[in-house]
Amino acid sequence: MSKIGVLGTGMVGQAIASRLVGKGYEVCMGSRSAENEKAVAFAEKYGDLANNGTFADAALFADEIVFNCTNGHASITALELAGAENLKGKVIIDVANPLDFTNGMPPKLLFCNDSSLGEQIQNHFPDSMVVKSLNTMNCEIMLHPEGIPGDHNVFVCGNDSGARTKVSELLQEFGWKADNIIDLGDITAARGTEMLLPLWLRLFSKIGTVEFNFNIVRKP
Amino acid sequence: MSKIGVLGTGMVGQAIASRLVGKGYEVCMGSRSAENEKAVAFAEKYGDLANNGTFADAALFADEIVFNCTNGHASITALELAGAENLKGKVIIDVANPLDFTNGMPPKLLFCNDSSLGEQIQNHFPDSMVVKSLNTMNCEIMLHPEGIPGDHNVFVCGNDSGARTKVSELLQEFGWKADNIIDLGDITAARGTEMLLPLWLRLFSKIGTVEFNFNIVRKP
Repeated sequence: MSKIGVLGTGMVGQAIASRLVGKGYEVCMGSRSAENEKAVAFAEKYGDLANNGTFADAALFADEIVFNCTNGHASITALELAGAENLKGKVIIDVANPLDFTNGMPPKLLFCNDSSLGEQIQNHFPDSMVVKSLNTMNCEIMLHPEGIPGDHNVFVCGNDSGARTKVSELLQEFGWKADNIIDLGDITAARGTEMLLPLWLRLFSKIGTVEFNFNIVRKP
Repeated sequence: MSKIGVLGTGMVGQAIASRLVGKGYEVCMGSRSAENEKAVAFAEKYGDLANNGTFADAALFADEIVFNCTNGHASITALELAGAENLKGKVIIDVANPLDFTNGMPPKLLFCNDSSLGEQIQNHFPDSMVVKSLNTMNCEIMLHPEGIPGDHNVFVCGNDSGARTKVSELLQEFGWKADNIIDLGDITAARGTEMLLPLWLRLFSKIGTVEFNFNIVRKP
């Protein structure tokens, strides 16, 4: 079973890391400091499969896959701390959104329209295969799609088709039906999925719950 | 039955205008020139209920509702030709998207992140009630939602709740179920629905058809 790095100790990182351990993966949760309390607590709570360390430790630990679960505005910095050499040849699953809350609510996107966080990461780390996915929903739905009844979708995009396939397989382990995983092609499609965030945030405030997702309905 | 103005003679304007005539409304299709061939052809084809004229003629003709179906990059200019005085106190249903094709495909959004076409129109015409709607789907689905099976959504936003209600009622005449019309609140939500376009365009290219729509699936 492969070893996976998870960068970020927030709600999304915790949810993904614990789900991966539950699936039998060895996981290293990385943060700016090896003494990060939340990462230490994760490693203590989940036993032998769970580890913690710096961003660089987590990237080095991974044999194939590293999740970027850091805050979008700090993701490039976090990945630089992880180190291009440690990320080389690996798939970076970018779950983050480049939300800027400095001017209050609603947040703006730091990259938008002519770029995206996914593309920025790919540009900074050309020897890694960035796959943008899971950023269009709450983390419970990411990892337990059956929590929302019926069909609904997760998007996958990235320049390397092999990496997209690898991510799709992992998504299926999380419970996603193959038919509900939409392959959008190259990483420029991350603009579209990141630009979904303003609508997601408005829906959240109107519906009053994060427990919803988008389903693309087609004419048969 | 009320009189409705439709600004724009393209595919969307034609589809909306003919659907309105089919529902028994008197319609005036407006364009830059009163001699616009497509507007003249519309008036000839659809008989007594169908009229054509300038943008100003169409705005003046409307007793309550004017559809903006012009190209998003030219909408402000078209509405200025229609005239603030002719649009005063009326609901402008803004169906347009501010797509800029000057740098080829995929198009960029002219306004994005910190504004939207809907907001720009509302700012330019403070004595009108702008309601953004229907801009997130192909025009056949706008007017015949039953063409896509099951539930799927149309969004409505605008600063005037009475205007949003009026638009929702008209959408129901087009066949939209009340439960599938999502009221997003004020006009700043137009950022979210316009920013859906990059994903829509990518889905179109991947799915290979315009016959799809978004459905928001919730936990029961």
